[in-house]
Amino acid sequence: MSTRLAAARGVLEHLGLDGILVSDAYDVRYLCGFRGEDAMLVVGRTTALICTDSRYWAQVAEEVEGFALERTEALVRDSTAAAARELGERAALGFQGGTLTHADYRLLRRRHRGRLRDVGDKLSRLRGLKEPAEIEAVRRAAAMTDAALEAVVAGGLVGRTEAEIAWQIREELHRRGAEGPSFDTVVAAGPRGALAHAIPGQRRIVAGDLVVVDSGARVDGYCSDITRTFAAGELSDELRRVYAIVLAAQLVAVEALRPGVTGHAADKVARDVIEAAGYGDAFGHGTGHGVGLEIHEYPRLGRRSRDVLAPGMLFTVEPGIYLQDVGGVRIEDTVVLGEDGCRLLTLFPKELVTVG
Amino acid sequence: MSTRLAAARGVLEHLGLDGILVSDAYDVRYLCGFRGEDAMLVVGRTTALICTDSRYWAQVAEEVEGFALERTEALVRDSTAAAARELGERAALGFQGGTLTHADYRLLRRRHRGRLRDVGDKLSRLRGLKEPAEIEAVRRAAAMTDAALEAVVAGGLVGRTEAEIAWQIREELHRRGAEGPSFDTVVAAGPRGALAHAIPGQRRIVAGDLVVVDSGARVDGYCSDITRTFAAGELSDELRRVYAIVLAAQLVAVEALRPGVTGHAADKVARDVIEAAGYGDAFGHGTGHGVGLEIHEYPRLGRRSRDVLAPGMLFTVEPGIYLQDVGGVRIEDTVVLGEDGCRLLTLFPKELVTVG
Repeated sequence: MSTRLAAARGVLEHLGLDGILVSDAYDVRYLCGFRGEDAMLVVGRTTALICTDSRYWAQVAEEVEGFALERTEALVRDSTAAAARELGERAALGFQGGTLTHADYRLLRRRHRGRLRDVGDKLSRLRGLKEPAEIEAVRRAAAMTDAALEAVVAGGLVGRTEAEIAWQIREELHRRGAEGPSFDTVVAAGPRGALAHAIPGQRRIVAGDLVVVDSGARVDGYCSDITRTFAAGELSDELRRVYAIVLAAQLVAVEALRPGVTGHAADKVARDVIEAAGYGDAFGHGTGHGVGLEIHEYPRLGRRSRDVLAPGMLFTVEPGIYLQDVGGVRIEDTVVLGEDGCRLLTLFPKELVTVG
Repeated sequence: MSTRLAAARGVLEHLGLDGILVSDAYDVRYLCGFRGEDAMLVVGRTTALICTDSRYWAQVAEEVEGFALERTEALVRDSTAAAARELGERAALGFQGGTLTHADYRLLRRRHRGRLRDVGDKLSRLRGLKEPAEIEAVRRAAAMTDAALEAVVAGGLVGRTEAEIAWQIREELHRRGAEGPSFDTVVAAGPRGALAHAIPGQRRIVAGDLVVVDSGARVDGYCSDITRTFAAGELSDELRRVYAIVLAAQLVAVEALRPGVTGHAADKVARDVIEAAGYGDAFGHGTGHGVGLEIHEYPRLGRRSRDVLAPGMLFTVEPGIYLQDVGGVRIEDTVVLGEDGCRLLTLFPKELVTVG
């Protein structure tokens, strides 16, 4: 934690600020260990405060070290006052415009007499480079989702509903000690597979369906994220071909990952395969996203991403093809980048598995 | 839905606006039925657009009626452009400063040439008055949590962990058809009961503990919210007394609820009982909050609330006493206000239940 706080202070010194008001809940947890909600940090060159209301004071005592507790009634008002007291009334103060609401910004602007600067995601990007213990937490979470997928295959698909399979995954994650899912599990069968973010429903899976299963577990706050697409019984030739295209795109993208590659270039490797096969319009999302305390974080692998991949970054690789009224395929791993390429943290096989 | 859209248009006409850019996800669902994320609405006097990216286009077709689909790549940029096209370049446009981030506001400000006005919670407040079908959904969700608490009592407390009990509730809610929990269940035993928002842990419950259990179910998107505090075996005299005080505060507050009472006055009824007993400092949160699609919504029952209670409002009544290193008591019902007072939707008994 003290290394992280030092890195945060590096950010504010680099930006010429006297302090930063940290409103992003994941950054709060990352910097001080607090697992609750409704807290802000005031980080100055020598100051470290956690500001929260009475619901959380005992929890702060349990979870947080190295930050003084500022007892608040109104979070933004009192945190702003604490920043002025600790850093000076005219302090140059950074804030996080991507998580602070505009209403809270206006409160801050009205009350703080010094300069304000939106630090964007500059602080949150510190979370992009993972420490070994963070990678290990994601690896443990990934092992749980691997096991949950094995259980799904063992339980069969045809005749079951999407909701039943989602619940089976939920139970497996609990049995294996996950804190919970890292996001709402997607189980999307047949035509519903064309909805990238489908809510599991009550339709029974029939032979010939592709079944997209996208799930994640949480361990020590850290998320895993894996998608596999199964064949329920025999597939049509078109669906087999679509599966093969997505698999090829995913494999070449994983293979191409190296330090120094941009998020744009990594996305292009996968996208080129899908476009060359004539399905470019059917791949409507980016190729991947960072994973950590937050399920979607820095870096991004996508058409507009300028992020540069570096050793220690942990992210997904997840191309897909979605055909309206027909079905979808997505294949997603969570990987960690090393000097020579990336290592898979999700290990469930990727060749097409046909399940009865 | 068309009644709701008409009410939203009433708000913008009342404020002299040409349209509102709706960013609050619960308002989006309330007005158009869309259950996904990452969408905005443009509501004008005759315009109704839902703006979202390709991940959700098929879902919009399934779930939304009466709104035209605006296909976006960058949500704020493209929604702002659509508003200008539909409402005029110089249109007076409302936005929701309590949910729009400051970064998104700046994008909006840079791109929209007309007047902008923060409508605050004026649109979200429409959700405060419930229709019969909404009350029925909450009632069904409340029946599920009642049943889950019965299962907890039947399963016993002493020797089990908080996490085991939280999982038992999760399973019961699933068995009874809930979409999921409406928030992370709190199970806080013994000294941990002093943490109003404790995360269930691995400590085993011992005789003499008070056990705070705060849970909710979700049905058709609507939330229930109930807290009961159980005695694990025989309690000390002090804890029995604290329980009796909180129960008295809860009962008189429920009894005092009438149309026209303010959130401040309702809070004061409960708080006076607790203060008179000498525990005023140990009741650090408000007495209640509205419940609906969102687990915490309009109205608020608290010291600073000016909300005026009206028939059809649905909210919690939940005083508590938290004694650091000793334990906590909270007793919470979800209620709906009628002309003559309120009706409980959560029906689990409130007298002290001692569980072995």
